[in-house]
Amino acid sequence: MNASAVDGSARGVSGDDRISFDDLVAAIESRLTAAGASPSVAKVLAANCATCERDGTLSHGVFRVAGYLDSLTRGWADGVAEASVDVAGPSYIRIDGRNGFAQPALAQARPEIDQALGDTGVAVIALRNSHHFSALWPDLESFAREGRVAMGMIASGKLAVVPEGATRPVFSTNPFGFATPVADADPVVFDFSTSSMSHGDLQLLRAEGKEVPVGTGVDSTGADTTDPNAILDGGGIRPIGGHKGALLSFMIETLAAGLTGGAFTYEIDAEAPEGAHTFRTGQLFIVIDPERGGNDAYLGRVREFVDMLRDAGMDRQPGDRRYANRAEAAERGIPITDTIRSLLD
Amino acid sequence: MNASAVDGSARGVSGDDRISFDDLVAAIESRLTAAGASPSVAKVLAANCATCERDGTLSHGVFRVAGYLDSLTRGWADGVAEASVDVAGPSYIRIDGRNGFAQPALAQARPEIDQALGDTGVAVIALRNSHHFSALWPDLESFAREGRVAMGMIASGKLAVVPEGATRPVFSTNPFGFATPVADADPVVFDFSTSSMSHGDLQLLRAEGKEVPVGTGVDSTGADTTDPNAILDGGGIRPIGGHKGALLSFMIETLAAGLTGGAFTYEIDAEAPEGAHTFRTGQLFIVIDPERGGNDAYLGRVREFVDMLRDAGMDRQPGDRRYANRAEAAERGIPITDTIRSLLD
Repeated sequence: MNASAVDGSARGVSGDDRISFDDLVAAIESRLTAAGASPSVAKVLAANCATCERDGTLSHGVFRVAGYLDSLTRGWADGVAEASVDVAGPSYIRIDGRNGFAQPALAQARPEIDQALGDTGVAVIALRNSHHFSALWPDLESFAREGRVAMGMIASGKLAVVPEGATRPVFSTNPFGFATPVADADPVVFDFSTSSMSHGDLQLLRAEGKEVPVGTGVDSTGADTTDPNAILDGGGIRPIGGHKGALLSFMIETLAAGLTGGAFTYEIDAEAPEGAHTFRTGQLFIVIDPERGGNDAYLGRVREFVDMLRDAGMDRQPGDRRYANRAEAAERGIPITDTIRSLLD
Repeated sequence: MNASAVDGSARGVSGDDRISFDDLVAAIESRLTAAGASPSVAKVLAANCATCERDGTLSHGVFRVAGYLDSLTRGWADGVAEASVDVAGPSYIRIDGRNGFAQPALAQARPEIDQALGDTGVAVIALRNSHHFSALWPDLESFAREGRVAMGMIASGKLAVVPEGATRPVFSTNPFGFATPVADADPVVFDFSTSSMSHGDLQLLRAEGKEVPVGTGVDSTGADTTDPNAILDGGGIRPIGGHKGALLSFMIETLAAGLTGGAFTYEIDAEAPEGAHTFRTGQLFIVIDPERGGNDAYLGRVREFVDMLRDAGMDRQPGDRRYANRAEAAERGIPITDTIRSLLD
């Protein structure tokens, strides 16, 4: 483990220590295999965690390792699962994750997915019985790097969202994401929760004793509150955009759980053991080759669109900050946070 | 034209007059053909308008006929266009609307779409060079009635939305919609604009001299305003949910314009003639057979999900009001509004 001492202190890291991407992957891998994950599963999850950490998505970086370990050691998620891949049609891949993690299942099905994309220009990937405990963007970026557009959504499992009219939480924060390649540039890639605030941010604000804006969530009586405690303890988070966010969550649950055959958020909550941090649900991905059928101008036209947005003042596009962090990490290593330090100990 | 006089006065209609669905279709059809639409195009558009009117989506009902006529008589949209349908892959249908309307193009491509769904369980439908001047839900409901789930999105063409950071409108209100069949019930079908308010509602509030909530939009200097005039005259509408709505609009433009090969909203605005009410852009539909690959429990599980939502207090699900209006219209006819009356004159 070579933690290289270089100058600078990005991301509020107090020391100057940095670690290389490969060393960080290896460190996470060894913790995962020690907890019972197979080498191939550990490799995929470790690369995912290290990628999030490197790119500055710290909420889904090394911070998540404890949750993976927790699920593995409790026997809640299967660290040696081999997914079952069913080609339901030339463009339709259904995957049973067999209670393993989503990223290794996706990696395992990659040959069938690539075959569908190559043959037909379309891949609908319906993954069930799988734990997705990371951000969506790494899954999506990998498709965009190969010239595809990709959409992803998750029934993320934690009952947390109370739409207007509902007397109790009925949705999770239901992440949704999208990625597209762009001519002569990095792909545009984003994901977001369909709730007004993520569960993690709310916990952070609670820890800091801060209030949230009206409209963020409700207390256990269904009344608006600015107190993160009241929202987290028996209340609920509101969807984005009022009923529109609720409709989006409805669609995500229907597709990522119903269409995949995975668990709806309202079903999984009762099933997960006390203290479980990962949820066995479902994820849906729709991947399309944008140039299929002679649409050869696609990449250039999206580039012009993005250039227009920058010209109109939107100078930071989705992914820009991640790519900047990535470039810095390639040159100088990944800053060693306290979370990484405790992993290395 | 039999305007049957029956009792009742729904929807603020002062008189008791009602018209049957078929008579309304015929009345609209004759106006469209008189303006140069082919019989087959007029039939599809008239059925669409009458469906919206019957179901209470008055903003996209007979109210829209004037806009269709306007586009036809100016020669801006082609009322006799025959779409060119290209099967780009077993699950991938690309359609050139040839400057006609979207609904007739979709109807014309229906055999190829149904073939893709029957053969593969998936249809990606990329429609370009087409005017979509109605709601998305009728397109989507027709798929759900046949047991499919369907997602739709539109680069709707009117530059109106200013995301945070932007100095000018860069998106349209970019409608998005979804439909799913449900066991022993009508499908759940919805669409919504990804902006805080639709252009039509804003115009309505302006006409009524009303104010809008802070956050709805900005004036020409980019400052928050509660004045619909300031938003409509040189300002812009905000997306739903802050940057999340902007990301959704980004995706919709990228897919409904870039992927289809249609015009982005920022391109079309300059192209449309002064006073044009329809826009030649693109629309993307993704349709999936949810039972493909042995997911036979789908319909029942979605029914349980919807029942759970109703039990949690969300007693009005998307589409409920439309179905109630539809049932009433089937029994008693469609209420004759002033807009319908002027059509019949």
